[in-house]
Amino acid sequence: MIKEITAHDLNTEKFITEKVNEIRAAVGSGMAINALSGGVDSSVVTMLGHRALGTRLRTVFIQNGLMREGEPKRVADIFKKLGVTVEIVDAQKEFLEALKGITDPEQKREAITQTFYKKVFGRIVRESGAKHLLQGTILTDVDETVAGIKRQHNVFAQLGIDPQETFGYQILEPLIQLRKDGVRMTGKALGLPEEMFNRIPFPGPALAARIIGEVTQEKLDIVRKATAIVEELLGGQGAFQYMAILHDDRVTGMRDGKRDFGRQIEVRCWDSIDAREARPTKLPFELLETMASIILKKVPGVVSVTYNIASKPPSTIEAV
Amino acid sequence: MIKEITAHDLNTEKFITEKVNEIRAAVGSGMAINALSGGVDSSVVTMLGHRALGTRLRTVFIQNGLMREGEPKRVADIFKKLGVTVEIVDAQKEFLEALKGITDPEQKREAITQTFYKKVFGRIVRESGAKHLLQGTILTDVDETVAGIKRQHNVFAQLGIDPQETFGYQILEPLIQLRKDGVRMTGKALGLPEEMFNRIPFPGPALAARIIGEVTQEKLDIVRKATAIVEELLGGQGAFQYMAILHDDRVTGMRDGKRDFGRQIEVRCWDSIDAREARPTKLPFELLETMASIILKKVPGVVSVTYNIASKPPSTIEAV
Repeated sequence: MIKEITAHDLNTEKFITEKVNEIRAAVGSGMAINALSGGVDSSVVTMLGHRALGTRLRTVFIQNGLMREGEPKRVADIFKKLGVTVEIVDAQKEFLEALKGITDPEQKREAITQTFYKKVFGRIVRESGAKHLLQGTILTDVDETVAGIKRQHNVFAQLGIDPQETFGYQILEPLIQLRKDGVRMTGKALGLPEEMFNRIPFPGPALAARIIGEVTQEKLDIVRKATAIVEELLGGQGAFQYMAILHDDRVTGMRDGKRDFGRQIEVRCWDSIDAREARPTKLPFELLETMASIILKKVPGVVSVTYNIASKPPSTIEAV
Repeated sequence: MIKEITAHDLNTEKFITEKVNEIRAAVGSGMAINALSGGVDSSVVTMLGHRALGTRLRTVFIQNGLMREGEPKRVADIFKKLGVTVEIVDAQKEFLEALKGITDPEQKREAITQTFYKKVFGRIVRESGAKHLLQGTILTDVDETVAGIKRQHNVFAQLGIDPQETFGYQILEPLIQLRKDGVRMTGKALGLPEEMFNRIPFPGPALAARIIGEVTQEKLDIVRKATAIVEELLGGQGAFQYMAILHDDRVTGMRDGKRDFGRQIEVRCWDSIDAREARPTKLPFELLETMASIILKKVPGVVSVTYNIASKPPSTIEAV
């Protein structure tokens, strides 16, 4: 049973000191490795690990091609300013290959997880010689595993490390007693800039979760452009989360006076406390129209834009 | 070259008298036949033909299964009050059969047109012995044919009447000099109730145009229910046109605490003068949320509802 530390009870300085000491004690004079996604959890783990181990922590950022516009460089630049070197590994081809022909949402998530752990990160871990792996698991992830909403895999099996050989490998999960609010507080105390510790939630499968149907390079380029527009326009609205979703359905449009079966972008923007229930944000209609017209103008092939008006439940925050 | 009569120049009494006389002169002591869809154009033609020929006009309403909720009975009841008998022909199976497996929008429209003319109405015309056919073609239809937006077929060929035999057959198009506004004025002058002459536009392929992907009985039932809710809620907003569209894409939802890949309804509501350009109506957000929650509650399988925020062009009024 994991003992929760609520945001209310959290003393960040004490927490950081404890975790830094625990990491040092566990790793000893060895090496540790972690994967940074640019999300809050992995960013905080990177800072904790760096404080504990300095250059004995190897932090890799896997460019899976499913990221938001300019993401790998943006994240690496932020950490560089904080004195942390981030190694960017280009694995775009491997992910696209793994996603080819898959339309089922569960299979899509599974393909990304498998490619990440088994193929790409697993290979890096095995080749690195590091026996300690830092992970940003938080208490909510554990809850969700118990509730069966997300499927947990044995991490070693995922990494392609034979259970027979796991002796000596150790996974460190310094954030496992915290929830998101506690993680954000810790991130702030560790000196992360606000754009990192207060970032809106972003799904693990990244832009693949924003594409209905098969994920292709062309569709990734479309949804990436639309996402940049939506995030820029809705960033100041105080919403819990906001996103652009590329539909697989083709809808009729007109380009240069001719019929054109084009693509549709759905925009979702949510008001929510904890993602368990959510309502569409009452955005000003003028903003909705402006957003639509910018998307129609700047994103190739898109002829239609909609705004979500359903609540969760029965809707969900993400569409995939 | 057809000589246009603008709404401004239209003298409805004079126009009606002229057209009634022309129809009488053409049909002589024979019979005429027409298909009533419940739209403005075919309703006005029915009234003109009835005034000219009385019971020598046979008016059929083809129930293609693609109609709005309660439509055939509603239309027949309105005309009954006006003294016009409407014969309802059930052809639901033939249309569903013809639409099976078709996902391409153009092929869908074509299958409906072919089934309507060649199979169902063609058979009725051939069997009726009537040599005169009344049609609600308006000037805009002719323009669109010239512009190549809609494809015109030779009507006789469509009806399966051999060009060799066409001698003696005659198509009468009493509304061909008018545009929609003139047709509405004529309908009013002919005593049609406002709900008929001022009805929002509805596409020829009916609810099949509101279904993305293959048309099936299940999808028709879903979009028919959603359409009834949308038309009831948006009827008083003064909009040019409004509709529910059933998407083919599945999106994630939650039902009874479990993941459910459900369906999505897109609502469109347009402000427009003449359908050439259109903007989404600025509906109150509360109305959008209420509409979504009613659809989610009452329409089986739907877990997501969106509202169109794109303008025409590059969008079009309909999605199929």
